[in-house]
Amino acid sequence: MKGLKGALMFAQSGGPTSVINASAAGVFIEGLNSELITAVYGAAHGIRGILNEDLYDMSKEDIKELERLKNTPSSALGSVRYKLKDASVDDTDYKRLLEVFKKYNVRYFFYNGGNDSMDTCNKISKYMANSGYEMNVIGVPKTIDNDLFGTDHCPGFASAAKYIATTIMEINLDAKVYDTGMICVIEVMGRNAGWLTAAASLANAKGLGADLIYLPEIPFDVEKFVKDVKEVCKNNNNKCIAVVSEGIKDKNGVLIGEVLGQAGARDSFGHAQLGGVGAMLSNIVKAETGFKTRSVELSLMQRCAAHCASKTDVEETFEAGKIAVRAAVSGETDKMVCYERKAGDKYEIEYKLLPLELAANTEKTVPLEWIINNGTGISEEFVKYALPLIQGEAELEKEDGLPRFARLNKVKVEK
Amino acid sequence: MKGLKGALMFAQSGGPTSVINASAAGVFIEGLNSELITAVYGAAHGIRGILNEDLYDMSKEDIKELERLKNTPSSALGSVRYKLKDASVDDTDYKRLLEVFKKYNVRYFFYNGGNDSMDTCNKISKYMANSGYEMNVIGVPKTIDNDLFGTDHCPGFASAAKYIATTIMEINLDAKVYDTGMICVIEVMGRNAGWLTAAASLANAKGLGADLIYLPEIPFDVEKFVKDVKEVCKNNNNKCIAVVSEGIKDKNGVLIGEVLGQAGARDSFGHAQLGGVGAMLSNIVKAETGFKTRSVELSLMQRCAAHCASKTDVEETFEAGKIAVRAAVSGETDKMVCYERKAGDKYEIEYKLLPLELAANTEKTVPLEWIINNGTGISEEFVKYALPLIQGEAELEKEDGLPRFARLNKVKVEK
Repeated sequence: MKGLKGALMFAQSGGPTSVINASAAGVFIEGLNSELITAVYGAAHGIRGILNEDLYDMSKEDIKELERLKNTPSSALGSVRYKLKDASVDDTDYKRLLEVFKKYNVRYFFYNGGNDSMDTCNKISKYMANSGYEMNVIGVPKTIDNDLFGTDHCPGFASAAKYIATTIMEINLDAKVYDTGMICVIEVMGRNAGWLTAAASLANAKGLGADLIYLPEIPFDVEKFVKDVKEVCKNNNNKCIAVVSEGIKDKNGVLIGEVLGQAGARDSFGHAQLGGVGAMLSNIVKAETGFKTRSVELSLMQRCAAHCASKTDVEETFEAGKIAVRAAVSGETDKMVCYERKAGDKYEIEYKLLPLELAANTEKTVPLEWIINNGTGISEEFVKYALPLIQGEAELEKEDGLPRFARLNKVKVEK
Repeated sequence: MKGLKGALMFAQSGGPTSVINASAAGVFIEGLNSELITAVYGAAHGIRGILNEDLYDMSKEDIKELERLKNTPSSALGSVRYKLKDASVDDTDYKRLLEVFKKYNVRYFFYNGGNDSMDTCNKISKYMANSGYEMNVIGVPKTIDNDLFGTDHCPGFASAAKYIATTIMEINLDAKVYDTGMICVIEVMGRNAGWLTAAASLANAKGLGADLIYLPEIPFDVEKFVKDVKEVCKNNNNKCIAVVSEGIKDKNGVLIGEVLGQAGARDSFGHAQLGGVGAMLSNIVKAETGFKTRSVELSLMQRCAAHCASKTDVEETFEAGKIAVRAAVSGETDKMVCYERKAGDKYEIEYKLLPLELAANTEKTVPLEWIINNGTGISEEFVKYALPLIQGEAELEKEDGLPRFARLNKVKVEK
């Protein structure tokens, strides 16, 4: 569909990142400037906001605040985890979406999220096409996990990686400060793909990294882990920093956190201990070595630390939002924006479009040949891949020494 | 003692901070420029480095790297937790210290640390004076806990407070992103004084703070906590962010972490659960409300996040080191450098000297009248007090998008 005037609808989905709102800023600003676009709507809490007609009129926002979205973490419109059924099984939601799209004359729809969101986006795109409703649908990728297929990297990954590497450098200096034994176990996000955990190796490249790095791509063995830690301690003045993915699994594919949780730890209500796998492993090496141990979970900070975001990531993510609108307006549909890295030594990317069904159903993990040292280290290739992505400091405005994040009016559209 | 030529010795002690090395930079740079000072030594791992003659010759360092110390977290020389016995009970260590001071003609001694370190510094100062060895001793304060007596605030506190407030703002945006119930319990350092936990209220002042803030100054009741959380959830769309000090205690003064730890949770080895009190409380409210909960421990990051340090803190801390040297060289001894805030609306401090015995034995907690809302909130007075301290961004140099921390040669002094 090309040349049709109509409204733009944008929604955010899945776990937030430091920069997901940069894409929102790109979509809104480009949309407000486009001649074909008659209105710019943001849906509250992803697909659910469309189903419930909880919509914001983005033209009512101050342009300064929309620009501040570039450096505001989390999802400004609210997010959701909502899985659409297949339309062939139950098309209730699809019918409702079509009704809402028609009511507001939405002809340009953008969904911002990770794997599951691209699946949702793909289903909506196909349904609308089949139903004969003229609409262009473009997926805007985001995920700190960096596991989307078909793109060199994912918006949001680099800022999380930069925070993780920076923080590990700082922890490295802190954890080694005493002249006594000290084991530090740092837990990083990433259920199935180890990209974020591998980011620890960027700190290693600066000489202030981790001694051991465990990705979910390689089966994890608790006994081997204890042995690895003891070995490092022996050669390293009884000090060891280990970084583990929250998603490490045993050889049967069961999460180590579940294996250890079932093995015993209960809280005072009799529930399985909820602490992360890092804390559990830390307890085990403490018992095994007698050294002081500390477990550090990078928790929500790694996905929302906008104060430490990568400028490269922020700018690319902003651009991805703008590109999505330009593509839709020029007639593209059923695609996801993706990044292609140009050949050559100088880092440069090109924005491309990938069919949504390809993006939706494939998970990209860390190449096994990049995992070295018997599953405890990351090769130079990863550093070469990731280092260009974390360059530059995000230009986060400060007010009273604290971040000045966007303050939206969020003017509701009358139903 | 005044006008005596001799060597300078500096050592760091206690838990590190983001800016403890800024004082080191101040001491070293001022010392290297002083005509009375014949050599500048840094001791490895505090007092233990002196006892063992593990000393570094700081004149062998590149001045650029010494300047980079200003923005390098943790203790560059290494730290220690070592409590000197009273000289009247056992003077072995003191005799050894005197021996080392004499051997290297140390006439200016500086100890950088918190309460315990000022106690050590005080004991050494008194012993050397009594033994007739001419030496000027000055304590350089540091502690993220902000609990030293006689100073408006402590070097290191503001940077930790800035990190905590910034991070809570970011977590606030992240934790409220879904349209479902969510309780987040954030644990902050501070065993007896709630200054750092109170820093959450700086985020509140920006509208992105915590709903509940619990300091160790007020006895903590788990049942009341659960009631408080439920109340917030009821009025707030089933969302609540609570910040607790690691040092919260029950009405008998027992740490809540111990109370709950003893009540049940054991790991797979039968050891009491080691997770922080925040994780325990998070588990309890999860069981009580059924909502999704998340516990976040700011752990080592709050004391080493130099990438988010306060410029005001860095500059004051650097200056405190310089002032210490100038004071000692001009004949002062047995004192600690402290900050006095000038009257008036504009924030300005004056550097003063306080007798070491006063600094050593008193702990400053948060004024009880600043704790409001039935022990769940912090008054405007705290914000007025703390906000000027977190102003400005530390000028941390970057290399490849990551911090460029100081790299010292650490040239050992021949024994």
